[in-house]
Amino acid sequence: MTKSLSSFQNQNIPKINQRIDDLLDQTVFDNELKSMMAYSIHAGGKRLRPLLLLAIIETVQNILTKDDFTVAAALEAIHTYSLIHDDLPAMDNDDLRRGNPTSHKKYGEAHAILTGDALLTVAFQWLSSLDGDSDKTVKLVTELSAAAGPSGMVIGQVWDIEGVTKQYSMDKLQQLHENKTGRLLKFTAQAANVLTNVSKQLADELVGFTTNFGLAYQIFDDIADVTETTAQLGKTAHKDLAQNKNTYPNLEGLQQAKLDLDNVIKHMNENLQRMSEIDSTLDLGLLRGFIQYLQLDGEK
Amino acid sequence: MTKSLSSFQNQNIPKINQRIDDLLDQTVFDNELKSMMAYSIHAGGKRLRPLLLLAIIETVQNILTKDDFTVAAALEAIHTYSLIHDDLPAMDNDDLRRGNPTSHKKYGEAHAILTGDALLTVAFQWLSSLDGDSDKTVKLVTELSAAAGPSGMVIGQVWDIEGVTKQYSMDKLQQLHENKTGRLLKFTAQAANVLTNVSKQLADELVGFTTNFGLAYQIFDDIADVTETTAQLGKTAHKDLAQNKNTYPNLEGLQQAKLDLDNVIKHMNENLQRMSEIDSTLDLGLLRGFIQYLQLDGEK
Repeated sequence: MTKSLSSFQNQNIPKINQRIDDLLDQTVFDNELKSMMAYSIHAGGKRLRPLLLLAIIETVQNILTKDDFTVAAALEAIHTYSLIHDDLPAMDNDDLRRGNPTSHKKYGEAHAILTGDALLTVAFQWLSSLDGDSDKTVKLVTELSAAAGPSGMVIGQVWDIEGVTKQYSMDKLQQLHENKTGRLLKFTAQAANVLTNVSKQLADELVGFTTNFGLAYQIFDDIADVTETTAQLGKTAHKDLAQNKNTYPNLEGLQQAKLDLDNVIKHMNENLQRMSEIDSTLDLGLLRGFIQYLQLDGEK
Repeated sequence: MTKSLSSFQNQNIPKINQRIDDLLDQTVFDNELKSMMAYSIHAGGKRLRPLLLLAIIETVQNILTKDDFTVAAALEAIHTYSLIHDDLPAMDNDDLRRGNPTSHKKYGEAHAILTGDALLTVAFQWLSSLDGDSDKTVKLVTELSAAAGPSGMVIGQVWDIEGVTKQYSMDKLQQLHENKTGRLLKFTAQAANVLTNVSKQLADELVGFTTNFGLAYQIFDDIADVTETTAQLGKTAHKDLAQNKNTYPNLEGLQQAKLDLDNVIKHMNENLQRMSEIDSTLDLGLLRGFIQYLQLDGEK
């Protein structure tokens, strides 16, 4: 029987949440700031990035360590900071996130900026507390800062914001997403490759799989913004269109966007096929679950 | 002849600036984002923190390495990010910084927030690129993230902002500054202690010296806000009073603030005295220069 993503989620989301809380307790002494950080990091997120990281590690080594959960928590802290800052009035100006008031709506703008800064900084504090050897820790700091920083997520967000006043080419749109959304998702494979003793060949396929997942996820998200309601999304629907954002449906039409999504999913299946050729004992059930996540039927 | 801080500055500020530029070139591929980051990090800052770090290393080992300059650059990146975010309309709402338009006045709020995020993240990327052994790098990441994060600079800034609507006790004011300004200055000694092979006894005195310097520097800065003009400061004068900020002169009067400053300077001289008792061959000229910096004559 192959592994199922839904039971893996049920088993590990509470452990991810517990690791986040333990780390917050260890590194944030002020209760008010801790509760502002906890409010956003526990605001009902799907834990997509931590779960993808842990699913890859489980797939290649069948066991999850405390260090794996620490890296998962750091990754979620970085993701949460980016949402808090993206939602600010000067950026996307969003009042709702996962059905709840955004950080600045609840605590005010100054506190939201600082809560984001706190989560970004503490992610590196958490990484630096790993039990494993220092060479691996340094590699993880390098990869996470590169993925999140000025040549990763931040430049993607800069381009996203500037895109409100100009129309991008499809190439530029893809570069935007490779940085804004793709780099943190790709980090899951890069981090898993540092944390485990996976072969170079398998490591490359995992990076390919997560890179494709990042692209597919963004197209999927853009399509959902057009086709789903605010209640289904847990955030304001149709905002991309209203803000004249550069999205796949806006630039190439909904029909072509769906074809593009199918095509990237095909590449992900090819990644999995090659992984099973490299090591036929691998149970790829969890990673197949991430492909199923991208089904456009509202039943995920 | 003892070492002079002014010739040390003249010699090393260009090298700090060069290291910052080299690191920006290596880690930021987008020229627009790089120029926004460079605008703020090169906006005429005194390089106080990098110079204090390098002065301590020079004092205890007489030689500065490339790694020392990399840590200095990372520290200045963190300091610069904090200024950009502090200046935002939702925070201190300052239009001028060192006589120039602040980041959000020049580039808009969204870009300023992202430029700050980029500098904060890239600081850890720079640290992770050190040539020295990984154990030391991990310690530096731990110390810098602790100094800058939610139990350091960020909580100090949270309290500073909240202080606009409430009056703090002198104890709370001191805690505020120990975190907001003090922790990054204390990091200079902590980092120097990691980067050199200094004795535990001397390391403790260096941490004491920089902790006292942080406190003295804040009192000095609060007094200068009252007694100097906008032109002298290079930033808007008398803002603390106008914003009803919790400052030493506001809480205890200008006269007492000056006495407090004298007292902390006395403690710094005692730190130096004990250092020369621990190692009589130490040339403490550079560190004495940092005490002279705190003279309230407008001639610094």
